[in-house]
Amino acid sequence: MIEYRNVRVALLGAGSVGSQVARLLLEHGPELATRAGAGLELVGIAVRDVDAQRDVDLPRELFTTDAGSLILGADIVVELIGGIEPARTLVLQALQSGADVVTGNKALLATHGPELFAAAEQVGAQLYYEAAVAGAIPIIRPLHDSLAGDRIERIMGIVNGTTNFILDLMDREGATFADALATATELGYAEADPTADIEGYDAAQKAAILASIAFHTSVPLAAVHREGITSVTIEQVRAARKAGYVVKILATCERLTDADGREGVSARVYPALVPESHPLASVHGAKNAVFVEAEAAGDLMFYGAGAGGVETASAVLGDLVSAARRHVIGGPGVAESTRSALPVFPIGTVRTRYQISLHVSDAPGVLSTVAGVLAAHGVSVETVEQTTTGATEGTATLVIGTHLAREADLADTVAALRGEDVVLDVTSVLRFVGV
Amino acid sequence: MIEYRNVRVALLGAGSVGSQVARLLLEHGPELATRAGAGLELVGIAVRDVDAQRDVDLPRELFTTDAGSLILGADIVVELIGGIEPARTLVLQALQSGADVVTGNKALLATHGPELFAAAEQVGAQLYYEAAVAGAIPIIRPLHDSLAGDRIERIMGIVNGTTNFILDLMDREGATFADALATATELGYAEADPTADIEGYDAAQKAAILASIAFHTSVPLAAVHREGITSVTIEQVRAARKAGYVVKILATCERLTDADGREGVSARVYPALVPESHPLASVHGAKNAVFVEAEAAGDLMFYGAGAGGVETASAVLGDLVSAARRHVIGGPGVAESTRSALPVFPIGTVRTRYQISLHVSDAPGVLSTVAGVLAAHGVSVETVEQTTTGATEGTATLVIGTHLAREADLADTVAALRGEDVVLDVTSVLRFVGV
Repeated sequence: MIEYRNVRVALLGAGSVGSQVARLLLEHGPELATRAGAGLELVGIAVRDVDAQRDVDLPRELFTTDAGSLILGADIVVELIGGIEPARTLVLQALQSGADVVTGNKALLATHGPELFAAAEQVGAQLYYEAAVAGAIPIIRPLHDSLAGDRIERIMGIVNGTTNFILDLMDREGATFADALATATELGYAEADPTADIEGYDAAQKAAILASIAFHTSVPLAAVHREGITSVTIEQVRAARKAGYVVKILATCERLTDADGREGVSARVYPALVPESHPLASVHGAKNAVFVEAEAAGDLMFYGAGAGGVETASAVLGDLVSAARRHVIGGPGVAESTRSALPVFPIGTVRTRYQISLHVSDAPGVLSTVAGVLAAHGVSVETVEQTTTGATEGTATLVIGTHLAREADLADTVAALRGEDVVLDVTSVLRFVGV
Repeated sequence: MIEYRNVRVALLGAGSVGSQVARLLLEHGPELATRAGAGLELVGIAVRDVDAQRDVDLPRELFTTDAGSLILGADIVVELIGGIEPARTLVLQALQSGADVVTGNKALLATHGPELFAAAEQVGAQLYYEAAVAGAIPIIRPLHDSLAGDRIERIMGIVNGTTNFILDLMDREGATFADALATATELGYAEADPTADIEGYDAAQKAAILASIAFHTSVPLAAVHREGITSVTIEQVRAARKAGYVVKILATCERLTDADGREGVSARVYPALVPESHPLASVHGAKNAVFVEAEAAGDLMFYGAGAGGVETASAVLGDLVSAARRHVIGGPGVAESTRSALPVFPIGTVRTRYQISLHVSDAPGVLSTVAGVLAAHGVSVETVEQTTTGATEGTATLVIGTHLAREADLADTVAALRGEDVVLDVTSVLRFVGV
């Protein structure tokens, strides 16, 4: 066997993931070398502050603040800085120099993906990003390689551990959203500013990445419909459980056909009602899971840790070994593919089933009025449940389950319902998962 | 972009999987071509009987009985005949001719894997086998590529749909083993001769394949300890559920250290007690799932359809596209790796926790006698539950949960217990999952 020279690896960033990548690379070097077919030499770690406190003790001589020079001497650059700048400039610089790049930067990919992939293609470099979605869970490679011969119809992912932790706590311990968020913060599952998680921004970035790879179509972040969980109430969660559902915030990517019969895709993030028997319903705590529906394979689910330094480092190292193998043997990486170039439809095009909860006057004719509003907007009713328990004297609660309806029609329906005198409040609108 | 000539694909076998592969290849040809970077041309289908009834209508001119000639004109040979011969001879012939081979043949891989991989290596051909384990579920590639930078500690797989269907029916509907098997046969989940499934032979083949790829060690089928589910009783299943467990037959592959501190691996198949909260416990019906514990990634699970013609065809086509890409661009396939070459330990070396159920005389001193036998064999007791309910007058049931103990010590213990006068019967011995 031919001895291959070491593959030089430059690491950008030494936060919770980066420091674990460095540790594992140093500890398991010989083992990884046999798998890659070449030694993996960590040539340096670029950080802002060489003297900062790190999670892991690493040789001081590896650290530098000069990322630019470090990149120039590397075959593979591992970017774990996060955020847009300086990550974007450094990744572009690395790719333009011909280095392969391994990144876990979902924000960067979701906003500047096409620019990065184009830069890579120009010089024949590769961009690997398994760590960008669902942490340790292998999902990018299965979608790109294992399902290469299949047609993915839909992906539903629990891709944000913080919000799954919060909703799970609300469901299992009856905590309010505020209390659950406080617990998540205390336990380190939520950041000091939890906006990116609880408003669904993080999940939306992952939805854009998943939809792009699944449908061979560039799905920009701006085209991902996004709703967070800040308005999910304990009453909604309790009522859902009573009816056999669990509230989960899902990143949904779907092929669909619009009213004119055009094929396209949709990517969206919102809390939804998942049937208790669905595999996604038993994903607890901060775990992630990606449920994939493919034409031939049927239903698949990939489950595991969606975050965590050492867990995410596993995905980074998997990409690193793959990239190193490619340096030795050549061959394809995980190239972007936008050859299908399907239109990305706005949320209004999506057809789904809804649960609408109303607070209404308890008077004769109310149900007929409400049903009339729905019918006028082409939304057909599957189930109705009216209760007066718990409602103020003279009022009632109406929970309506609809058949498949278009989001646009539903939005009009809800607006019209709010305009009716007998409707005191639209207390909850949630989508059901599945058809 | 350079236009690449078509990649010529020969299909061996047109059973439930083969006929679906042919159909999808013909229907989705152009789409698959863009993914592979070259056209995938189905040059022929070798079968025993050209005129046999097939699941799918396929062009008659594709069929031939001359597998040998078909192989000689192919770049990629897809073997879906199953069984050892003639599959082995044809796969060897294909590899020796320089063709890549895609196979779903677990029996062949588990028994002749090293011979096939050696033949492939000699000419630089590749052997792909995603479809051989857990049907449609991507597991081979995630183990080989995505986890290439990690260290797999243990795999526990529900890799046989028939037996999971049977055990699930016993658990959920209180069916006896015999009734559940009859239902499985009626619904087509069990074959006319169900031996390969219910005695664990099928699962053992998959365990050998999984252990080999996970531990970079050739694990021969003969080294896989195997127990089926024919002796699992409805009483065991009920008692397990009452105690918070579900009985599942698992293929377990594990790194372990023997009494001398040597590192090695174990592969085994037996029914085990899975805690209700474990993700494997909610794998119902004929579904498959592979649970992976890795040093860095932590716990992962891969879930989906473990069998079925069109579902398994998805895995075959994924391999086919990968193989075709390699024809165009070059690069590594899913090579065998036995570089760790760890010893494969016999079942006696394995340490696990046991549940031993005894039918005993209800007399003073019985517990002390039983506890003495366990202690004498170095098996330490964690829990004891003694009940007289349901037992014959003057007798009692004793259910003992042990701490971690070696299989060899456990076997000696059970033999010694059977020799005690106060022990009327050892009614059940089951392993607990996890530590």
